[in-house]
Amino acid sequence: MKNKSLISITDYSKAEYLRLIEIAEEFEQNPKQQLLEGVVIASLFFEPSTRTRLSFESAINRLGGKIVGFTDAASSSVKKGESLKDTILTVSNYSDLIVMRHPLEGSSRFASEIAPVPVVNAGDGANQHPTQCMLDLYSIKKTQNTLDNLNVALVGDLKYGRTVHSLMMAMSNFNATFNFISPDELSMPDTYKNYLDDQGIPYYEHDNLEEAIPHADIIYMTRVQRERFSDPIEYEKVKNSYVLRNSMLDQTKDNMRILHPLPRVNEIHEDVDSNPKAYYFQQALNGVYMRQAIISSILGLK
Amino acid sequence: MKNKSLISITDYSKAEYLRLIEIAEEFEQNPKQQLLEGVVIASLFFEPSTRTRLSFESAINRLGGKIVGFTDAASSSVKKGESLKDTILTVSNYSDLIVMRHPLEGSSRFASEIAPVPVVNAGDGANQHPTQCMLDLYSIKKTQNTLDNLNVALVGDLKYGRTVHSLMMAMSNFNATFNFISPDELSMPDTYKNYLDDQGIPYYEHDNLEEAIPHADIIYMTRVQRERFSDPIEYEKVKNSYVLRNSMLDQTKDNMRILHPLPRVNEIHEDVDSNPKAYYFQQALNGVYMRQAIISSILGLK
Amino acid sequence: MKNKSLISITDYSKAEYLRLIEIAEEFEQNPKQQLLEGVVIASLFFEPSTRTRLSFESAINRLGGKIVGFTDAASSSVKKGESLKDTILTVSNYSDLIVMRHPLEGSSRFASEIAPVPVVNAGDGANQHPTQCMLDLYSIKKTQNTLDNLNVALVGDLKYGRTVHSLMMAMSNFNATFNFISPDELSMPDTYKNYLDDQGIPYYEHDNLEEAIPHADIIYMTRVQRERFSDPIEYEKVKNSYVLRNSMLDQTKDNMRILHPLPRVNEIHEDVDSNPKAYYFQQALNGVYMRQAIISSILGLK
Repeated sequence: MKNKSLISITDYSKAEYLRLIEIAEEFEQNPKQQLLEGVVIASLFFEPSTRTRLSFESAINRLGGKIVGFTDAASSSVKKGESLKDTILTVSNYSDLIVMRHPLEGSSRFASEIAPVPVVNAGDGANQHPTQCMLDLYSIKKTQNTLDNLNVALVGDLKYGRTVHSLMMAMSNFNATFNFISPDELSMPDTYKNYLDDQGIPYYEHDNLEEAIPHADIIYMTRVQRERFSDPIEYEKVKNSYVLRNSMLDQTKDNMRILHPLPRVNEIHEDVDSNPKAYYFQQALNGVYMRQAIISSILGLK
Repeated sequence: MKNKSLISITDYSKAEYLRLIEIAEEFEQNPKQQLLEGVVIASLFFEPSTRTRLSFESAINRLGGKIVGFTDAASSSVKKGESLKDTILTVSNYSDLIVMRHPLEGSSRFASEIAPVPVVNAGDGANQHPTQCMLDLYSIKKTQNTLDNLNVALVGDLKYGRTVHSLMMAMSNFNATFNFISPDELSMPDTYKNYLDDQGIPYYEHDNLEEAIPHADIIYMTRVQRERFSDPIEYEKVKNSYVLRNSMLDQTKDNMRILHPLPRVNEIHEDVDSNPKAYYFQQALNGVYMRQAIISSILGLK
Repeated sequence: MKNKSLISITDYSKAEYLRLIEIAEEFEQNPKQQLLEGVVIASLFFEPSTRTRLSFESAINRLGGKIVGFTDAASSSVKKGESLKDTILTVSNYSDLIVMRHPLEGSSRFASEIAPVPVVNAGDGANQHPTQCMLDLYSIKKTQNTLDNLNVALVGDLKYGRTVHSLMMAMSNFNATFNFISPDELSMPDTYKNYLDDQGIPYYEHDNLEEAIPHADIIYMTRVQRERFSDPIEYEKVKNSYVLRNSMLDQTKDNMRILHPLPRVNEIHEDVDSNPKAYYFQQALNGVYMRQAIISSILGLK
């Protein structure tokens, strides 16, 4: 993985997923190894993010690395009309690796093709967010003790949600069974379903949350956003149908764990938070170790 | 004080005030002890602040600690509708201690009750700003060589000013005499005066600055803000009555020192700045040492 | 240079330019010397900048220093009506050196006169940007192996461009010949031409880019901004006349290199980027080493 940019989850092989999970486990045991002494990493957030940015910065700081960058495009030269190419070529001079989030799909891939330093995609529009997917895999492995043969329920916005697409692609390497639970307007696109068909991977579509979850090992919740609906009346009809409540969890498996990329709005009721099956806040912590694994692998330090 | 959040100045006892002052003195002698190696502190400013934020960040940096965070809510996930609870629980994963400023009263207390890591309140609306109060105490101790038996004049907005309320509460442990100097509309609330009455602590109210300061050991100035007045004409009438000028200082005691939490607008005339009785910029420096004392005590490093 | 603020390029002598270039060369050989252990530098950007800010922060981080500050005035106490004097005096308490960019001409000089710590001007309006000039000198020295007897073409906005003024003043110490290429409305001001006349330094004015560059050792490009023209029709007439294209470079000298302070908009066509004579991105990297040289010299560490 040395010197290789990470733009899409499909940039890595199954073997690389497993290796990164091993390294993340090492960092979880010892998160303060001073591996990044003297290393400067550029953190370029062309749109704001608390979670992803702070997770990366915490990961880097704990390893002794330094960070330069910006937290939104308003503090950057983009305002002066500078092209993304020029920004990336300039910032490459100031850093050993670039972490970037950008609203435009494909922008991170473009950056990785021109930058002399490796680029890690921290989200490019609705497209890819591979470090999120890696921390999701790590969270599944930690809670289920395996990635193989799991029943995975993906809930909410399956049409636009980049995290569910990436997770589905990654888990398709591990003999998973998928359940897709979404309103009609936001169902899993055909291109992904065709992919599963071609691979002979079973999947089931539901519009009822409760009936779909009793066999799940993992329930992966996502936000259903009002602005995704062409018809607001349609949104009002379905908005409460995809809310997970504590009362629904009795009928689920003991080993089942609930994941969410966060931030949530109301799709997981707060009464779930204290249920031991709720795992979304620990999931966020896993992001620190996984990002340490990704960065140190790319820099050739692990 | 280990692992204990600091939300209000009343969270600490008189003995703890004195212990923190001792530790701050140690840091003033040696401000670059690398105590925070490998420690990550979250600095969450839901509203902007130069002074408090930079003071905390300087304190942490000088001790070798690292910082993650945001400088205003616009760069955070709050914009996406995330609850304060979720933000705090998530950020707890990224840090060993949270420093937070938030416009809502009570928000820091709430955060401290749900966070698995200690929280230091860096100002919650008009409510509390305990690290400011601790640096004020430290400044008084340094300039008077004692905290006991002092005459303290509090000037300006005594109704809404959180710093004067906190300082009054803290100094009420040290046999102080208080002089309150303010326009009628902004006088010290009854709840605080009742508290002093109950404790048998003497206080005097004035609406004339000059007549109130000759016996003061400490003059603590605060801003009188136009927006606090229901009647703008009332503001125009009083606005120049609470401005401290160099010519007023001849009649004050030699040991008297002027404090101000800053930023000032015009309530201390610039001709005071070069008077040796002006202490407000040194007071700001004391904030670095006191914040080093508070953070290292809470982390159990002192 | 120890403890001396750097506000204008004319604050330094020719001997000091040469010494700083030597130190920058040392840092280029070894950019990760941990010279700034325990040092805190304030980075005060009252207006946004990617390049300059990230270059300074990368320089400081690579040497083990720490940074506190803000990236635009909106996150500072300026919004609360605080004077620049108070901001500078306060921040001086939090840092060992102040790097500042401010939209007002003269603001950095003012800051240096009141601050107890040294100030480095990172741009004060249209006035001065001396660290840019020093990295330009370093870039010229690296590409030409000397600063003496060079033919320097300055192109674009010569009326308002602070970088071209500073570079001209600095290079006037080294027996340069100047070519000024600009639209009439943006020609080099008389005060600079009188200075060259007084020193007996030759210069030539052109309004045609192609005819002016065959003898150049250095072509220094700058942006021609629409808002500089009183008459928009005038802008439309000239805007494409000062664009450098790859096809123009055949007739230039082999040793010629193209510099640009960046960001560019369209004044250097992208087809120039892969020409070996294009040097502007490497120039940006030189800024890291030169800023390391300036800061460590002022702090007395080199």
